[in-house]
Amino acid sequence: MRRDHNSLEEFKKYREKMNRKILASENLQIQRFFNLDTRAYQEGALSSKVKELLGLVASLVLRCDDCVTYHVLRCVEEGVSDAEFFEAFNVSLVAGGSITIPHLRRAVQRLEESRTLNKKRFSGRR
Amino acid sequence: MRRDHNSLEEFKKYREKMNRKILASENLQIQRFFNLDTRAYQEGALSSKVKELLGLVASLVLRCDDCVTYHVLRCVEEGVSDAEFFEAFNVSLVAGGSITIPHLRRAVQRLEESRTLNKKRFSGRR
Amino acid sequence: MRRDHNSLEEFKKYREKMNRKILASENLQIQRFFNLDTRAYQEGALSSKVKELLGLVASLVLRCDDCVTYHVLRCVEEGVSDAEFFEAFNVSLVAGGSITIPHLRRAVQRLEESRTLNKKRFSGRR
Amino acid sequence: MRRDHNSLEEFKKYREKMNRKILASENLQIQRFFNLDTRAYQEGALSSKVKELLGLVASLVLRCDDCVTYHVLRCVEEGVSDAEFFEAFNVSLVAGGSITIPHLRRAVQRLEESRTLNKKRFSGRR
Amino acid sequence: MRRDHNSLEEFKKYREKMNRKILASENLQIQRFFNLDTRAYQEGALSSKVKELLGLVASLVLRCDDCVTYHVLRCVEEGVSDAEFFEAFNVSLVAGGSITIPHLRRAVQRLEESRTLNKKRFSGRR
Amino acid sequence: MRRDHNSLEEFKKYREKMNRKILASENLQIQRFFNLDTRAYQEGALSSKVKELLGLVASLVLRCDDCVTYHVLRCVEEGVSDAEFFEAFNVSLVAGGSITIPHLRRAVQRLEESRTLNKKRFSGRR
Repeated sequence: MRRDHNSLEEFKKYREKMNRKILASENLQIQRFFNLDTRAYQEGALSSKVKELLGLVASLVLRCDDCVTYHVLRCVEEGVSDAEFFEAFNVSLVAGGSITIPHLRRAVQRLEESRTLNKKRFSGRR
Repeated sequence: MRRDHNSLEEFKKYREKMNRKILASENLQIQRFFNLDTRAYQEGALSSKVKELLGLVASLVLRCDDCVTYHVLRCVEEGVSDAEFFEAFNVSLVAGGSITIPHLRRAVQRLEESRTLNKKRFSGRR
Repeated sequence: MRRDHNSLEEFKKYREKMNRKILASENLQIQRFFNLDTRAYQEGALSSKVKELLGLVASLVLRCDDCVTYHVLRCVEEGVSDAEFFEAFNVSLVAGGSITIPHLRRAVQRLEESRTLNKKRFSGRR
Repeated sequence: MRRDHNSLEEFKKYREKMNRKILASENLQIQRFFNLDTRAYQEGALSSKVKELLGLVASLVLRCDDCVTYHVLRCVEEGVSDAEFFEAFNVSLVAGGSITIPHLRRAVQRLEESRTLNKKRFSGRR
Repeated sequence: MRRDHNSLEEFKKYREKMNRKILASENLQIQRFFNLDTRAYQEGALSSKVKELLGLVASLVLRCDDCVTYHVLRCVEEGVSDAEFFEAFNVSLVAGGSITIPHLRRAVQRLEESRTLNKKRFSGRR
Repeated sequence: MRRDHNSLEEFKKYREKMNRKILASENLQIQRFFNLDTRAYQEGALSSKVKELLGLVASLVLRCDDCVTYHVLRCVEEGVSDAEFFEAFNVSLVAGGSITIPHLRRAVQRLEESRTLNKKRFSGRR
């Protein structure tokens, strides 16, 4: 498959490497922010699945490809079905307009890649 | 309670009146868009409740007060609890940053007003 | 007519008064910026009418009510018809999504007010 | 010429391929949205040329490179001259600020590429 | 002076009242976010004055009136001069474009109000 | 080091080349805008260093990678320390939310590259 950007593995490596550098800085508040960011999506009154869908829609309407990639990956792990994905995509599209379409195209590519990656991960576990 | 903007009733009246004017124009495509907007939140693979929460978070991170008001009202009708509301608010706040705080303040006011309105509606039904 | 905001006359007075204060500051660059802003909409390879429509759509998708008000007023002066207005509104709505709808409602109100103001201006000229 | 991104041909292929995948999903509302998006730019009270210019300015101020690319290509097909392009660019720049400059740089590159592509298309027709 | 919105005193009261309600909710993470928000502007490697100017420019380019009001007030307390204010306004205007002008108008009004309020506060201290 | 985008040298070359093309167009107003953009960051009531920090934060919250790259480079030239950079990053992160994190990752990479480039430039001067 032709890629318009880095592979999912490259994305993850770059993300982890730069996050390490950011957290290695002596700025405690940035570390606390990263911590809050992680916790925002943990199981609570709302399930992790719903929260990841909230994160996905926020990322799409704010048009942040890397954020979309991250939440697509997490939604796949949380068991979001294709029908559910496309309904969340539709809410984003209607709310955010056609300006979100290029991001939607990349989201759909990321969804395919994430399904493949997720299958490997599980078959590798046996 | 001091109001930073119109009451919920005024909001609803203005919204309905202007929507009627927009839909009375001879532009069929705008009518179709409004139709798609309504349908995006209907029960499907995802529940109406989850979809309204998606709409609420999209509205908060895009910082649209009237959209927030509308989805707060709908979320109350769908039975979203206070704990669920505040977790959705937290996702919006972390994703969208402190720039969303003024909108969060108004969202919390709208939540109070919507709970009051919803109670009246139900007690009025008997 | 119920107003969700200031009247068109109040808008214009406030705008002119604050612009005067801004331009009275000793910051020459801000003055030059205001100058560039005025010139951007003057007749050229594209007509003033088309440029005002460009300004209107930019204002709607960026969701700036005061900018929308200004360009609606100018478009009325340039002779934009209702059918043309609604097609420009539709481009904004499709490009910018349902998040622009509250701004569209106010734009339609401003359009009515501007038509009334424009009629008075012309009948007053005799 | 050095490219900061995919060639115009690659852009078009990726766009078409992913659009097909999106439309192949069973989500009827997304299909309808895509339909509305196409229709918004068709000849009406405003000409296609003016509507494509509206789409171009909306894309520039919302800073969506792929959307800019698409509307630059369409504007070239509609016969928009260089002087007209640069006046529309100037409206976008003044309205959207220096933050649009990186997108303007890529728009100018896309304009060159689109002129070349359009010439080939026409000479190929004979 | 005609006001396009609430007085500075009303703004402060509403802000404090709603912040209390938000912090009274049982959502610890929102409380932590508010804490991080306060700390971000405290004296450090960069002075509070510079940080408040950073907050002001961020608020202007993101076009959040309440955030602008807050940082104008804080900048006045930090001793920012009119010349410094207008240079920061100019950076915001050039970076964010004419779409920030309505917010600039309100910022200049807030600056006048804040200077008055600040004078009273100091004369009241004797 | 793995690069998620062009090298700093490539960025600078592309930027200069396309700016030349834009300024070679016959649109005088765009030339004036570019001039205003340059002047906004010159020493005045506020130092160039502070103004570049303002530009950096504006670029981060508006999520414009190329603008961030440019201001990181200029801040390094103005002698901004790592501690100062990270406090400015923190203000951007808190104000703009987690949606700015992907841009922060690239900013930190650009900071490393700019430090390296700046060292070379100075050692090359002898």
